[in-house]
Amino acid sequence: MRLTHMTDYAMRLLIYLAQRPERLCTIAEVAGNYAISEAHLMKITHQLGLAGWIATTRGKGGGMRLAREPRGIVLGAVVRTMEPDFFIVECFSTGNSCQLTGNCKLTGVMDGALRSFMQYLDDRTLADILPEPPGSVATHVIRIKRPVQARAA
Amino acid sequence: MRLTHMTDYAMRLLIYLAQRPERLCTIAEVAGNYAISEAHLMKITHQLGLAGWIATTRGKGGGMRLAREPRGIVLGAVVRTMEPDFFIVECFSTGNSCQLTGNCKLTGVMDGALRSFMQYLDDRTLADILPEPPGSVATHVIRIKRPVQARAA
Repeated sequence: MRLTHMTDYAMRLLIYLAQRPERLCTIAEVAGNYAISEAHLMKITHQLGLAGWIATTRGKGGGMRLAREPRGIVLGAVVRTMEPDFFIVECFSTGNSCQLTGNCKLTGVMDGALRSFMQYLDDRTLADILPEPPGSVATHVIRIKRPVQARAA
Repeated sequence: MRLTHMTDYAMRLLIYLAQRPERLCTIAEVAGNYAISEAHLMKITHQLGLAGWIATTRGKGGGMRLAREPRGIVLGAVVRTMEPDFFIVECFSTGNSCQLTGNCKLTGVMDGALRSFMQYLDDRTLADILPEPPGSVATHVIRIKRPVQARAA
């Protein structure tokens, strides 16, 4: 079970841009950094641009950057935009030949499992998958339970 | 996003056998019924047999049947047995080349989404995906809300 490379690369592109908010990045540098094809990245850039998550500037000195804050880019929406389909099993597609179609309940159960998967990603944003900046200190608040003191009688 | 054909066919084979508890079924008849390859079905039968979900009898008049009640066959376990891997994104595999590995949090989030998907299937069994027997009557209780009657003043 897997997502397409397009979705995988889209996530990494978004992470790369989120880590460099101060400047424009080029397809060539992102492709070189992750060792993935520029042609694939161009398609991904186009789709992410249409969705309004990245902005591109053409010409010399041009490049791309995030068009929103990382916490405004929902991971479930990225997956829905990048995946060509969600035909987990054959009976999800219209051209399927299974004799059980319309009668068995496999589609419904698989659809439920898929909804659970997507709900998890709908509850998370790009901000949740960004690497910790180098040298950063964890900001979680750790509540230390005080030992119960013996009361004086 | 999709599961392999092997998982899809395994589910359909189990459904077929569950619908015919009174007799042994052959690979040839299941392959013919679903228009899928006998070679694939032989591999699937072997794996489902190793997992203890189907029992086979060799020789003339032989065939296969479920080795457990449908409610004893958990769908999540079938998916885990049949899928070759769960590398939803490249960084799930050991040979990945992503520069972010070990630092970014994509793996953790995707792993969480996958756990939600599998939990849904772990809560359901083969009995939940069987077609309704022909002529069966739906047993859902339909509550009809009575219209509110105008009160006499």
